[in-house]
Amino acid sequence: MSVTIDLGRRLAAEALGTAILVATVVGSGIMADRLTDDVALSLLGNTIPTGAILVVLISILGPISGAHFNPVVTMVFAARRGLIGSAAGLYILAQIAGGIVGTWTAHLMFDLPIFQVSETVRTGSAQWTAEAVATFGLLLTILGGLRFRVEAIPMLVGLYITAAYWFTASTSFANPAVAIARSLTNTFSGIRPVDLPGFIVAQMLGALIAVALASWLFADRRNEIPPISSKESV
Amino acid sequence: MSVTIDLGRRLAAEALGTAILVATVVGSGIMADRLTDDVALSLLGNTIPTGAILVVLISILGPISGAHFNPVVTMVFAARRGLIGSAAGLYILAQIAGGIVGTWTAHLMFDLPIFQVSETVRTGSAQWTAEAVATFGLLLTILGGLRFRVEAIPMLVGLYITAAYWFTASTSFANPAVAIARSLTNTFSGIRPVDLPGFIVAQMLGALIAVALASWLFADRRNEIPPISSKESV
Amino acid sequence: MSVTIDLGRRLAAEALGTAILVATVVGSGIMADRLTDDVALSLLGNTIPTGAILVVLISILGPISGAHFNPVVTMVFAARRGLIGSAAGLYILAQIAGGIVGTWTAHLMFDLPIFQVSETVRTGSAQWTAEAVATFGLLLTILGGLRFRVEAIPMLVGLYITAAYWFTASTSFANPAVAIARSLTNTFSGIRPVDLPGFIVAQMLGALIAVALASWLFADRRNEIPPISSKESV
Amino acid sequence: MSVTIDLGRRLAAEALGTAILVATVVGSGIMADRLTDDVALSLLGNTIPTGAILVVLISILGPISGAHFNPVVTMVFAARRGLIGSAAGLYILAQIAGGIVGTWTAHLMFDLPIFQVSETVRTGSAQWTAEAVATFGLLLTILGGLRFRVEAIPMLVGLYITAAYWFTASTSFANPAVAIARSLTNTFSGIRPVDLPGFIVAQMLGALIAVALASWLFADRRNEIPPISSKESV
Repeated sequence: MSVTIDLGRRLAAEALGTAILVATVVGSGIMADRLTDDVALSLLGNTIPTGAILVVLISILGPISGAHFNPVVTMVFAARRGLIGSAAGLYILAQIAGGIVGTWTAHLMFDLPIFQVSETVRTGSAQWTAEAVATFGLLLTILGGLRFRVEAIPMLVGLYITAAYWFTASTSFANPAVAIARSLTNTFSGIRPVDLPGFIVAQMLGALIAVALASWLFADRRNEIPPISSKESV
Repeated sequence: MSVTIDLGRRLAAEALGTAILVATVVGSGIMADRLTDDVALSLLGNTIPTGAILVVLISILGPISGAHFNPVVTMVFAARRGLIGSAAGLYILAQIAGGIVGTWTAHLMFDLPIFQVSETVRTGSAQWTAEAVATFGLLLTILGGLRFRVEAIPMLVGLYITAAYWFTASTSFANPAVAIARSLTNTFSGIRPVDLPGFIVAQMLGALIAVALASWLFADRRNEIPPISSKESV
Repeated sequence: MSVTIDLGRRLAAEALGTAILVATVVGSGIMADRLTDDVALSLLGNTIPTGAILVVLISILGPISGAHFNPVVTMVFAARRGLIGSAAGLYILAQIAGGIVGTWTAHLMFDLPIFQVSETVRTGSAQWTAEAVATFGLLLTILGGLRFRVEAIPMLVGLYITAAYWFTASTSFANPAVAIARSLTNTFSGIRPVDLPGFIVAQMLGALIAVALASWLFADRRNEIPPISSKESV
Repeated sequence: MSVTIDLGRRLAAEALGTAILVATVVGSGIMADRLTDDVALSLLGNTIPTGAILVVLISILGPISGAHFNPVVTMVFAARRGLIGSAAGLYILAQIAGGIVGTWTAHLMFDLPIFQVSETVRTGSAQWTAEAVATFGLLLTILGGLRFRVEAIPMLVGLYITAAYWFTASTSFANPAVAIARSLTNTFSGIRPVDLPGFIVAQMLGALIAVALASWLFADRRNEIPPISSKESV
């Protein structure tokens, strides 16, 4: 019985975390867009809250569910046997449902129509490359953090997304559940539903490459000569 | 006797911390508003100092009084028996008094009339929803931090408020004492006194929901099968 | 002999640290002022580098000299017998000399005349109040950090100054050596030499009040009933 | 055999890290420049991602290769015998190759011609002084961090570069591999190839001065009287 209860709490953590994450992305985008005509400033007003809330959410919900908030991350852990298949499916459903509630909560707070569909075009090979790079970097950050600095993962993910908002051209969605939720807002952070498949395929591709690279780069081979650590090289 | 002395120091810490917090919120709002016409930039110049000072104040005053600086937080700890009722009442008085002094100090530093009353309208169901969400998230951050990352609480609260300034439409007051103090400044961060009750009720509602959820989500049930921790899932 | 060598290294650390701190304050002010007409943005471009470099300098030079970089801080430690009087005098000379070199280095990097005198008026009771509050808060941060979170002091001081740039009206000089150095640049961060005495007196007054308050608030009285710690109140 | 494998992973880490670093610098520069006409805001949009990604990259790749990403840093460690000469040469080649791939990746993501040559003039004694100061400060940060706060080095380097973007007039390249890569983009962060030699010589000079100073300032002399530590002086 306790297993079921436990899974319930884990799913709640995934749904809640994804909801707050999406409410932050969508809400801060609306706020920034309302207050200024300078798009760089809007992006900054979108970036800083997103990076900040990620540190908070991963810190307080990570010990419950792992704080994936992202189907691609869940798939990677399922493939590594850190999560059994049926739980992985439920995780992804919880993330998608939570994300949608997050968008609606943002609309409610900003006095906008709850149900919207985005008209923002985000497509083409440059955008797809950007999403693949963004998700590649996100997975590399998570897998490298798990290997070497577990306690710093919340901060590392927050800082990685802060950077990726600016260097990846697509402003780094890097997350199918968040992308789906963002297709349901016709505000600053939206994406047309028809553009979702391209983004999601690119995200999965980027994650695959990261996992393949990480399995070699971050391998824990005890019998090899230790690499130069910062400490030892002094 | 030593109990009384100790309570005196605790109350001083609550009053001082709330005063510096409010002086930062009000003062940085005045500074930003004077220097630019771009409201998003003003909000950024209000957000960054507020997040930063929270980390400082909770770090240096937390070990003395718990660094509530917020009647809603005090009420939650009183309900959990972490604070006896009479002390809780004095905490709240100290927070309100400290907050008002904070507003007046900001006026003094910026060469403005000390005594003011705000005329900024902040009302309506969207704003109240925003305040409920803001306070819900703040309590979730504090209770989750207490459960899993006590030493990181100052940083988590600073980052949460940094995010909440932007994603909650009301710019996240989330604190009755700070709201009262902000009703006494007719500058960037003000709120009309007549709008206080709506905000305070919404804040208490948001806190209640957070406490109820946290009592289930963050429960420490030793006999359950351990959840997937980030560490174990690798 | 080793004592002398040691004092030499400490003085070098104080001079070097104050030089880099002032070069950052003055240099980033020039950079920001050149790139934008929006003064709030200039202040942000002045704030972020200053907060960041303080974390770095206190981390790497603190273990050598204590990383005061500030005559007021040195005087406080001398009064608390953490530093003998003659060393304190040399510390202050090193800070002033280092600060001036910092201003000149900034001019050199930005292709400006090395020797300048500021014409920026910063005077009056509001500004003095601001400086007293700024220095009060700085000392409270340092003394509270030393009492409860020694390892976090570099971050706490960096974050405090980040906040104080915005909430104190004077943009928080809070440091006589830095103020003197800033009187020698007629750029964004300057201050007229004739306005120095008012600032320095206000800074010392603010520090005095902080020391008096801290000796009570942060006292380590073992026989008292322990205050509510965040941890215990859960 | 394991030595060779190990060197391969180290070189991959250096190339990958430098590629992501340069993609961030170049990509965020393009993004910021597209979104606003305010150059200070562009610089902020360039600074924050660069500082953030440095913390991430040094945290996850430092344990593999030392996370130099910078020929000057590699040369310093080779001179200190932390790295054998032939490995140092390969490190530098990996950094230069990785950096160039980083520029090209940014172009790909932003739908720009892959192959470009910068036309941005960055020359003259003020710029060279700035680069010498920038690299001096970077090496001081690294060597001081290695001496006193090894676990904080990722954060210290990220914060140092955040500050140096603003206070050094040249926006702190401080890295020959990054400079070479930036000569291949005619966007916000570019530098004319003909201006590279001046920058690289200045960087090496700044590093030399830092190493000389650090060998005295950060020396570990056990028999000397301990300096005033922040802790002891209370």
